[in-house]
Amino acid sequence: MKKFMNTAETMAAESVEGFVRAHESFVVFGADRKCVRRRQLQPGKVAVISGGGAGHEPMHIGFVGQGMLDAACVGHVFTSPTPSQIISAIEETDSGQGCLLIVKNYDGDIMNFEMAIEMAAGRHDIETVIVADDIETARVGEGRGRRGVAGTLVIEKLLGAAAEQGMPLQALKRLGDGLSTRIRSMGVALNGVTVPHTQRTTFALGAGEMEVGIGIHGEPGHSRQPFTASDAIVHQLCETIVGDIAMKPGAKALLFVNGLGGTPPAELYLAYNAARRFMEKRGIEIERSLVGTYVTSLDMQGLSITLALLTTEELQLWDFPVITAALRWS
Amino acid sequence: MKKFMNTAETMAAESVEGFVRAHESFVVFGADRKCVRRRQLQPGKVAVISGGGAGHEPMHIGFVGQGMLDAACVGHVFTSPTPSQIISAIEETDSGQGCLLIVKNYDGDIMNFEMAIEMAAGRHDIETVIVADDIETARVGEGRGRRGVAGTLVIEKLLGAAAEQGMPLQALKRLGDGLSTRIRSMGVALNGVTVPHTQRTTFALGAGEMEVGIGIHGEPGHSRQPFTASDAIVHQLCETIVGDIAMKPGAKALLFVNGLGGTPPAELYLAYNAARRFMEKRGIEIERSLVGTYVTSLDMQGLSITLALLTTEELQLWDFPVITAALRWS
Repeated sequence: MKKFMNTAETMAAESVEGFVRAHESFVVFGADRKCVRRRQLQPGKVAVISGGGAGHEPMHIGFVGQGMLDAACVGHVFTSPTPSQIISAIEETDSGQGCLLIVKNYDGDIMNFEMAIEMAAGRHDIETVIVADDIETARVGEGRGRRGVAGTLVIEKLLGAAAEQGMPLQALKRLGDGLSTRIRSMGVALNGVTVPHTQRTTFALGAGEMEVGIGIHGEPGHSRQPFTASDAIVHQLCETIVGDIAMKPGAKALLFVNGLGGTPPAELYLAYNAARRFMEKRGIEIERSLVGTYVTSLDMQGLSITLALLTTEELQLWDFPVITAALRWS
Repeated sequence: MKKFMNTAETMAAESVEGFVRAHESFVVFGADRKCVRRRQLQPGKVAVISGGGAGHEPMHIGFVGQGMLDAACVGHVFTSPTPSQIISAIEETDSGQGCLLIVKNYDGDIMNFEMAIEMAAGRHDIETVIVADDIETARVGEGRGRRGVAGTLVIEKLLGAAAEQGMPLQALKRLGDGLSTRIRSMGVALNGVTVPHTQRTTFALGAGEMEVGIGIHGEPGHSRQPFTASDAIVHQLCETIVGDIAMKPGAKALLFVNGLGGTPPAELYLAYNAARRFMEKRGIEIERSLVGTYVTSLDMQGLSITLALLTTEELQLWDFPVITAALRWS
């Protein structure tokens, strides 16, 4: 295991500190470093908060800023943030319009966010949107079913934009729940990753193997298959995604090819090219695209493909200005 | 070698095609796909052009757009674009104010850009800025000395902004040559990379080794050393950089930590944190920061650190709006 780190214990904290310093013009640590929040909070809007284990950077801290999240909490590597962290983020960002929590569907995250909500209830109006966009981790029948993976970025971008424009809490909750039914992701890994504090590789792959349907915590996937040409891999992922999502003719979509940490941009663009051809052959209009390393699993070599079917209004939310470390446009 | 690709022959072309499709709102292929250029060219300014081998994405195509490059040419993996490609980019973008070519200091690039200039002379005013920011590849005594690595991004951003604001050709040339004396980079690799068309690994490292002072074409570095803690690695790179650059007290700087393709954002931020502390202890004010995967060497695990000493005017050029795939702000 060769990683740029000093100790397993300090890895996440040192990385987040570097992040905050690199983007100090618009993000800042919350009290006791329990969360990372916007430097300038905007009163009069619903606070949008997310969080999860470290090891998925730039998610979620890279999505904090104008037009997206108000705050994000980071746990240790692959470990949920504590209820105390989440409560702190709520208290620092709720300006009276309530808080929307965006939570990926993992047992630890669900439990800790639920505990935080119970403890903050009465003082804060809180709604939760659960993200569960990953097709394949559902099939292995573990825990709560589908996990939240790269589709989380899409949900956070659209709800962040809607909140910024003044959408109230209940409407944001409905929008988020509706979006969740139209966003699907699937990933493939070319290697397992070593978790620093256990020094264990999550799964081991031979030189000619790949793991299809992986999650972002190094869970093994749905099946181990012979490694093959990129077009065949992309075709398999896209076929599964399209088969799992209720599709209308002429549907408009966002196509997102996400790197899992160790895959360079050139390979992601090559995969995007094949995914785009596939979708267009199926009559899906790709109206927006995103290609890059946004939702990672440490230094995993691999990628995921996300398809989000969006309405015209939702496409406008995608285009709404955003100033974060990972997404930035006006 | 596990990479998302179909064939070694088509890898670069398929990747660039995916790139152009993903960013079709502001980039387009030039004639016969010889270059990638802005969709909307802006007449009345100097055209700023760069190019180089594939395998370094998002450089240079990711820097094409408003406020940065007008066009970029991509060769095969680690192979210079042809003179014919470069001439085509010149012809498509020169609106009468001349062309500034930004060329990394490699034999193949220099030769092909020089041939293109000779062939285009008389019809176009052309100046060239050579980028040679890499400290360590100089010491191995190969070829033309220092190579152009991640500092290329800084030069292309600043000259692109200056050109956008109407700076004439000769002034851009002087600005670029001046900048080159104040930008230094150094990199470290944790593995060698496999070049697709040769199937050869550029250098092989043991589990406990790292290669210090590498270039971006898989050249071996200045020395092979035992792999160690991130802080010690960063300290060594920063020490070498600071020792090589003429420094005045109170100097203002841009600090850029660049991923070489296979290193995840979390590790880059951790390294940035250490680099920032180092620079501040030496009295260097870090006025701007950039952390991410911008100038790669295929899927190399590793990073480089770039320090650029900039004047107040140059910092303003850094802040000038840019709309490209890799850098985007307003």
